[in-house]
Amino acid sequence: MSFQSLQNDSFLRACQRQSTAHTPVWLMRQAGRYLPEYRATRARAGSFMGLATNVDYATEVTLQPLERYALDAAILFSDILTVPDAMGLGLSFALGEGPRFASPVRDEAAVRALAVPDMDKLRYVFDAVTSIRRALAGRVPLIGFSGSPWTLACYMVEGAGSDDYRLVKTMLYSRPDLMHRMLQVNADSVAAYLNAQIEAGAQAVMLFDSWGGVLADGAFQEFSLAYTAQVLAQLHRSWDGASIPRIVFTKGGGPWLEQMGLLDCEVLGLDWTVNLARARATVGQRMALQGNLDPNVLFAPPAQIEAQTRGVLDSFGRPHTGAGQGPTHIFNLGHGINQHTPPEHVTALVDTVHSYSRQQRSA
Amino acid sequence: MSFQSLQNDSFLRACQRQSTAHTPVWLMRQAGRYLPEYRATRARAGSFMGLATNVDYATEVTLQPLERYALDAAILFSDILTVPDAMGLGLSFALGEGPRFASPVRDEAAVRALAVPDMDKLRYVFDAVTSIRRALAGRVPLIGFSGSPWTLACYMVEGAGSDDYRLVKTMLYSRPDLMHRMLQVNADSVAAYLNAQIEAGAQAVMLFDSWGGVLADGAFQEFSLAYTAQVLAQLHRSWDGASIPRIVFTKGGGPWLEQMGLLDCEVLGLDWTVNLARARATVGQRMALQGNLDPNVLFAPPAQIEAQTRGVLDSFGRPHTGAGQGPTHIFNLGHGINQHTPPEHVTALVDTVHSYSRQQRSA
Repeated sequence: MSFQSLQNDSFLRACQRQSTAHTPVWLMRQAGRYLPEYRATRARAGSFMGLATNVDYATEVTLQPLERYALDAAILFSDILTVPDAMGLGLSFALGEGPRFASPVRDEAAVRALAVPDMDKLRYVFDAVTSIRRALAGRVPLIGFSGSPWTLACYMVEGAGSDDYRLVKTMLYSRPDLMHRMLQVNADSVAAYLNAQIEAGAQAVMLFDSWGGVLADGAFQEFSLAYTAQVLAQLHRSWDGASIPRIVFTKGGGPWLEQMGLLDCEVLGLDWTVNLARARATVGQRMALQGNLDPNVLFAPPAQIEAQTRGVLDSFGRPHTGAGQGPTHIFNLGHGINQHTPPEHVTALVDTVHSYSRQQRSA
Repeated sequence: MSFQSLQNDSFLRACQRQSTAHTPVWLMRQAGRYLPEYRATRARAGSFMGLATNVDYATEVTLQPLERYALDAAILFSDILTVPDAMGLGLSFALGEGPRFASPVRDEAAVRALAVPDMDKLRYVFDAVTSIRRALAGRVPLIGFSGSPWTLACYMVEGAGSDDYRLVKTMLYSRPDLMHRMLQVNADSVAAYLNAQIEAGAQAVMLFDSWGGVLADGAFQEFSLAYTAQVLAQLHRSWDGASIPRIVFTKGGGPWLEQMGLLDCEVLGLDWTVNLARARATVGQRMALQGNLDPNVLFAPPAQIEAQTRGVLDSFGRPHTGAGQGPTHIFNLGHGINQHTPPEHVTALVDTVHSYSRQQRSA
């Protein structure tokens, strides 16, 4: 496949720890319910999966936030649970509720029946990636993504979101052999899935370990981090002559910063509990850092949003500005944007990142 | 008041970093819904508040787990939200749901109307403390407790539990002046409340910062930790000739271990994400450590519970065994026990803590 050449490479450069004129910014869930134009498209699509599985709709909503804000990257519109859906678990989204699986994985027979799904069942995702990449026409790079093996396992066992993760942890502590088997299938599936996204046109990929932070010390390393590492080891390092940066984000992963710093990936995503100066001192010589404004800041008036945004940039400090590699920062929220966010508040964030980070570099 | 002398002082000694023959153990929410005898008492009481406000019922359920398990401490049966209830917010517990306030604090007028409540409105708590202390008859010490100023503020603004803490964080980021005012009232109230518990017979007190971990780095220090420190500074250090140890527990506080290690308290409670060896190396020369088994371990069969319990003890390592002060460990869960826990599984935990920790000391 051939695509138009990239006009704004600040995100990809920062991923590779190369200097940029400003700190690039994008937002987790930047295409989503807080945007009225998204809600209009979703109404036409009829359902979340109707939206996610339709190439034209997925392309349309992926590009919507780029029309409003000067974002430096686009991220595929999809869901982290497409892979278990392709395994046959039956994903659905009831209105006003989170995802739900019709056939959760609760016993040994169900675990033994799991296998890496036929990637043809996820063709709608790869087609969307190619369509979005074409529609972007080189404006900004496109990020592909997946849930991490552990995070997929949480939903596969619980069947839905959970307050206490009782079912998945009961399996983990009672039958670690079954949990390891499920995670191995998940790791191989996620690697194949992300590689197919890369082949379809994704210019970076991100692993969302949204539920890694619910694990105990020790269990996190054995049941989440080890399988994240397995996925990373299987991913394409480059495609069509371009390097493909890999981002790992663990919500609640703050206590394990040092160990995550040993992962073989280019970018570490951080939630808002992490002090960026400390993270830079700990892992900033090996990885770019992405994050980490509390999404709830966006409910405050613009003046406070600007101050908090500058605070996050100050916490990281001045990125390197020379040739070669050095510490770099990709601005993001510390978690997905809240559905109730006033869209006009996002402008204050994005514009402050650009203007203030240019000031930082010239100071 | 005079009470019978203490027969098992292992918990209080460990709080003061003095050596003990075994590692003391108690469990957050050890008196509660997982026990059929608790459910029977609650049924007689009619409601949660009917139970918590009746001295005889509160005494009965506080002692119930001590009849089943060889626990080394009792904790007052009450709720973390009694203080805002006494402020007039109207606490209730609907069946199967969490706590709810009839009059949440959502605007400037409501914040300005807040004041330290008349402690006479909390007389039922202090009477329960004295009654429980008498009923314990020196078997084990009695722990009093309160929610932290920040955790109380979360419930006071949200009016109930929350997934995203949008309302309280909107106030925090939009009107930090109002949030500081509310936290100041909460800190003074909590200090008066805990001091009255001490005067009524509590032999140690614990601050539950259950929602500190939802705050961003920077906001945690300013809006949670600073007010925890204010409470600590106001507490009785000793009463009736006995030292009163102070325990601080922040769920999700792992990223701020170093800063919490500077608090003026005797014991730091840790959730299951924290590596005990690292915590011991960081703060173990200043504070006793309490924690931190994942409560979900209790859903596994007894053999796995025993192995995971030994793992937590091994992670802390051998406590000091000499004269004077040194590193000590108080075994606990990393959060409250789950209501679905099989009661017989708790025996495996408690007995393993005692037997294995004696082995550790003689090894």
